[in-house]
Amino acid sequence: MSTSHLESWNDGAAKRAIVDFVTSAAAEGTPGFVPRADRVAVFDNDGTLWVEKPAPVQTAFILGKLAARVKEDPSLADEWPYRAVAGDESFLHALEVQDADAVTSMVEAVGAAWEGTSLDAYEAEAARYLASWRHERFGLPATGLVYQPMLELFDYLRAAGWRVFVCSGGGRDFMRVISEETWGLPRENVIGSAPEFAWRDGVPVRQAVLHGPVAIGPGKPEYVLARTGRLPRFAAGNDDVDVELLASAQFALLVVHDDDVREYAYTDGAERVRATARREGWTTVSVKDDWNAVLKERPTQEEPSAPHQ
Amino acid sequence: MSTSHLESWNDGAAKRAIVDFVTSAAAEGTPGFVPRADRVAVFDNDGTLWVEKPAPVQTAFILGKLAARVKEDPSLADEWPYRAVAGDESFLHALEVQDADAVTSMVEAVGAAWEGTSLDAYEAEAARYLASWRHERFGLPATGLVYQPMLELFDYLRAAGWRVFVCSGGGRDFMRVISEETWGLPRENVIGSAPEFAWRDGVPVRQAVLHGPVAIGPGKPEYVLARTGRLPRFAAGNDDVDVELLASAQFALLVVHDDDVREYAYTDGAERVRATARREGWTTVSVKDDWNAVLKERPTQEEPSAPHQ
Repeated sequence: MSTSHLESWNDGAAKRAIVDFVTSAAAEGTPGFVPRADRVAVFDNDGTLWVEKPAPVQTAFILGKLAARVKEDPSLADEWPYRAVAGDESFLHALEVQDADAVTSMVEAVGAAWEGTSLDAYEAEAARYLASWRHERFGLPATGLVYQPMLELFDYLRAAGWRVFVCSGGGRDFMRVISEETWGLPRENVIGSAPEFAWRDGVPVRQAVLHGPVAIGPGKPEYVLARTGRLPRFAAGNDDVDVELLASAQFALLVVHDDDVREYAYTDGAERVRATARREGWTTVSVKDDWNAVLKERPTQEEPSAPHQ
Repeated sequence: MSTSHLESWNDGAAKRAIVDFVTSAAAEGTPGFVPRADRVAVFDNDGTLWVEKPAPVQTAFILGKLAARVKEDPSLADEWPYRAVAGDESFLHALEVQDADAVTSMVEAVGAAWEGTSLDAYEAEAARYLASWRHERFGLPATGLVYQPMLELFDYLRAAGWRVFVCSGGGRDFMRVISEETWGLPRENVIGSAPEFAWRDGVPVRQAVLHGPVAIGPGKPEYVLARTGRLPRFAAGNDDVDVELLASAQFALLVVHDDDVREYAYTDGAERVRATARREGWTTVSVKDDWNAVLKERPTQEEPSAPHQ
């Protein structure tokens, strides 16, 4: 199988493991062969497909919406997650490490914030946000923060007959706004947390409750199973809420953020997954050592040379 | 666009309307152009893709399971839908015309019957049933009852860049057992009614409750929207629970069962959809006049020449 298109990947253990797995998977009659129907590859998004520091792209979108709600109803200001609007960092940190109460309160607040909004209106709101949002350090729009090596990996997998899916705890419908142009994936290949919809005056509108679990932890393989009828043969993630997804796959790829010059170096919220990867022998990708290019676009702001925490 | 592969379709209004729509959809710069990302085509299954008379293929599978439950707990025998096991035809008729109480009681009974069953075990059970089941009149296995013209339409649409989905009120996981071989569709393109799953000892098992609505009526476009992020541009159905799906599409195709020699002629449960089709100008397919071949396989039993009701 030609690997000429994995050009942002350095020759090393990670690239070798990927190429070996994908090559064997395509070789009928060998022990590593994966029938074409089973070639389902699933990627987490934040921290796996694009930069998630200092906060995931979607965070300010949600906080802006919550701020508007606090303005309408100031009594909310003391509650989680609305306290984060006023700058309470403890909530954002709890969310970052996927604290269960933080996640639940966020899911409820998001559900309430967009209840009754049509899908079209939600998408337009997300698209406006994405059009103006810029990364505070790199000056790039969100789509420029996508990891170039992962786009090459998508192409490499697709060329070998794999169907690529993205499954993220972040809102499914938020990601779908960029999935086609940025990842080359049709919207149906983006799965994960989403509200129920109901028909109002002939228009589908968001309901406050989630349709299914939050797509973190065991919720991820549950979504993959429900959508594809299979568990993944290939999965990629980067933090502790990806453990179950990675464990459900035949080939697991863990992104390790260790490059504070070209990206960020951090371990918060990834302790358990890294320990599991060591124990299980999963393939790990060092951003620093395995990727010779990181971001899809060139940062537009000059980089301070000091390491960024 | 070559139509050479729609060979089971007679030249007539239905074929012309399909070809016109698909041809325009591919022609950039014309008013009928449909962007590639929006080319989502959705088909109902029972009565749209295969024979649903004298009862849908899945019915005896479910009744067999319910019979086993009645054996274990004879007190169930008097309740809907278990009464159908003993031959109460009123229930099956109510189900056929999608009576809401009948549907609800069936959904609950099915949920209870397979609660705790792993997906693998459920699929094996369905596969065993399908391997031995034969149509009482045609002697064919279920996969032989698929309408040949619809398989050609799948190919025609795919060749024109459409993504084809099946959305049926019948169990999603039952259809997925045959989707790849029979329709050439990956499992993820089969959407519709399905239970929630939970992890038990590392294995995903069916829960009693449905994950989302039953995929009939408004449930169909809801599933399409959730799975694909879009409403369909092309939809095909045959009975009253398909009205909302057809109404949500740009191009709607209604199969009219009017051929009691090669298939069945019936109107039950299709009165509303036919009236809507006339009012809205939907394209209708007469099995008798528009298809020069109906079933994928040749019936293995000799056909009594008397019309079958």
